[in-house]
Amino acid sequence: MLIHSASQLLTLAGGPQRGRALGSLGLIEKGAVLVRDEKIIAVGATDELKNAYPDEPTLDAGHCVLMPGFVDPHSHLIWAGDRANEFEMKMGGMAYLDILAAGGGILSTVKATRTASMETLIAQTRPRMLRMFSHGTTTAEAKTGYGLQTSTELRLLKALLALNDESPLDLVFTFLGAHAIAPEYKDDPQGYADEVANTMLPMLKEWWETHAPGLRPPFVDVFCETKAFNLKQSRQILSQARSLGFPLKIHADEFDNLGGASLAVELGAASADHLVKTSDADIAALGKSDTVAVSLPCTPFGLAECRYTPARKLIDADAIFALATDCNPGTTWNESMQFVIALACRTMKLTPAEAIAASTINSAHAIRRADTIGSIEVGKQADMLILSISDYRQLGYRYGTNLVKQVIKRGQVYVTVPNLVKNA
Amino acid sequence: MLIHSASQLLTLAGGPQRGRALGSLGLIEKGAVLVRDEKIIAVGATDELKNAYPDEPTLDAGHCVLMPGFVDPHSHLIWAGDRANEFEMKMGGMAYLDILAAGGGILSTVKATRTASMETLIAQTRPRMLRMFSHGTTTAEAKTGYGLQTSTELRLLKALLALNDESPLDLVFTFLGAHAIAPEYKDDPQGYADEVANTMLPMLKEWWETHAPGLRPPFVDVFCETKAFNLKQSRQILSQARSLGFPLKIHADEFDNLGGASLAVELGAASADHLVKTSDADIAALGKSDTVAVSLPCTPFGLAECRYTPARKLIDADAIFALATDCNPGTTWNESMQFVIALACRTMKLTPAEAIAASTINSAHAIRRADTIGSIEVGKQADMLILSISDYRQLGYRYGTNLVKQVIKRGQVYVTVPNLVKNA
Repeated sequence: MLIHSASQLLTLAGGPQRGRALGSLGLIEKGAVLVRDEKIIAVGATDELKNAYPDEPTLDAGHCVLMPGFVDPHSHLIWAGDRANEFEMKMGGMAYLDILAAGGGILSTVKATRTASMETLIAQTRPRMLRMFSHGTTTAEAKTGYGLQTSTELRLLKALLALNDESPLDLVFTFLGAHAIAPEYKDDPQGYADEVANTMLPMLKEWWETHAPGLRPPFVDVFCETKAFNLKQSRQILSQARSLGFPLKIHADEFDNLGGASLAVELGAASADHLVKTSDADIAALGKSDTVAVSLPCTPFGLAECRYTPARKLIDADAIFALATDCNPGTTWNESMQFVIALACRTMKLTPAEAIAASTINSAHAIRRADTIGSIEVGKQADMLILSISDYRQLGYRYGTNLVKQVIKRGQVYVTVPNLVKNA
Repeated sequence: MLIHSASQLLTLAGGPQRGRALGSLGLIEKGAVLVRDEKIIAVGATDELKNAYPDEPTLDAGHCVLMPGFVDPHSHLIWAGDRANEFEMKMGGMAYLDILAAGGGILSTVKATRTASMETLIAQTRPRMLRMFSHGTTTAEAKTGYGLQTSTELRLLKALLALNDESPLDLVFTFLGAHAIAPEYKDDPQGYADEVANTMLPMLKEWWETHAPGLRPPFVDVFCETKAFNLKQSRQILSQARSLGFPLKIHADEFDNLGGASLAVELGAASADHLVKTSDADIAALGKSDTVAVSLPCTPFGLAECRYTPARKLIDADAIFALATDCNPGTTWNESMQFVIALACRTMKLTPAEAIAASTINSAHAIRRADTIGSIEVGKQADMLILSISDYRQLGYRYGTNLVKQVIKRGQVYVTVPNLVKNA
């Protein structure tokens, strides 16, 4: 299939984008892409490719932007229930501790998730994946973490594997048993850290080899934060994970600076995520490294906070900067990377081009999948978007609605924009 | 048609909601609504209405929220071109005056709009109306204002009348010849104020009677702001409009406090809009009045500013508080009232219930259409939404995507949520 006549083809070709190179779109006017067997075969100008492949079936991009599918490198995709009630209490002025006393907070989601059946978990997660996909996300990282006990954490992984099989949206898996201190260990956080490191992770290794043969191992992630896992416990868990062969991620500096980002660099983690209260030393460490700096601007937005990731400092330090939704039931239930881009531009002063690179090629690096996705290059998977706009800068400028017209996933075309249908 | 089995039917019944009454949803669990000939005939519990109307065709609301359609009481719906380029320059750090020097700002939209054909204006505005409608807005106010000369201003009105005829979205019209000082009068702002008051408005009256016989007269609106129309000029224009029989609106206190809100109250305007830098005296004046206080939180959000309408002060002063998109090409291109609600909750500390009332019954009052729309009450127009959620508090809590499943407009059912369609 030859997709042709895009007003702007954004290839995002090349390596991860650092510093001033961030925002290199590889723009081809009147661009075209040849797709065969789920893969990208050729990329170029419409005239050239039409001449080279005259008998190929065609898809007219209709003078719209053609770009790589969004890669969302940080989501807590799977949970049961919701916390709309807690949101209402918060907006009504109730203090956080009172909300906790009223049964709110992460442990309310843990409770709902532990008691949910596999069918419920899948049924409640499926529409979130559909929303992600119809808003242009073609690959999403998905974390466990609302189990905080081996059985539930592995059940979440099992549900995610099933959802990945049924959905056109590709998932990349992360084990986040260390999302919070399990309620059973509330007076013994070190006991839970030991449990994760010494019991859960070895079991995970065995489980994965049995249940997901042939798949790359999941990431192991830790919430390094005051009231969650301190730096020493984070090091303990991540070091153990590394010795078992798992690639690493970390939640760092959402509320306090504990040094998690530098730990991520030291251990060779794929990414350090959140990065709001990040120190200059941590920024410098990220800047020299291949650990991607993943910013989650929807989290402060969702919490109505004013402080965001120091994105420009990270970019100036030559960090690989990426964006993600952080979609979760507590702080930000938003599935759309388009909104992340709009928010990132305004709150962190990114240009649309920078935010687009941070949501495609750089976010593919954050989940170590840039070998197959994140850009439109020969040999990569044919994961692309046709937007209902002719100028990429409308991404970011416009917001609140869905600018995706068609999603192309592994070469298959999905239409996601509704035509208004009158019926009875 | 009997729409039944809503998990929550929000009627929003009764008058405009002031003070502590704001957020009175009139919630009926397992609610139902009987619709005939575009009108609401009965409202109640599903069991009761099913017994009373056993032979009525039915529409199962599927345990979802059923509520009035959103009323968007402030939009600059019609313009030509876009300012994505300007957005990129702004995010890239260029100063406002440099952007103006590079041809940006409102006058660039005026230039594009003046030279656009009627067909272009309609073709570019139509998809915005579709986005509004598919996100649940069933009535929107639409302003002229990118003409700043009689011929173009009237052409915009003519295009809006045509769009209103073809679309299921109902428009309410506003003449905003006084949106900015026309470029021809840049050294003589009083000259342009005189032109609007003494030439445009009388011509508008005659034009409307010829081109829109039987329709209610349009609102007349003024941008009362530093570098636009001062308080005296605003009074001149609005007083003349009132003497010609037009209902009034005003843009007040977006950037500076000139006293526009109190002027609106004094002249009996339907609404005063923006209200960011509003003084305590102005808040007190609005509090005692029937002039609706319309907040446009997307405007500071779009501009990446931190200061929003002092909503809680206005509510505490017993003002009638409403929300709107302000959709326009310069500061905020967002068509979705759902996003306005999500933003209003977070930035102005509204509960979801308060934001819903401000987007339905109170916003209907802001455009003086509460006699026919804004709530689900016997005799009103059947403008309603079925949301894809079972708890109204998910509005606001969730954001970035579209939670509308079906739009019911004058009794007709429109499906707007996409089913993912795989095609080639």
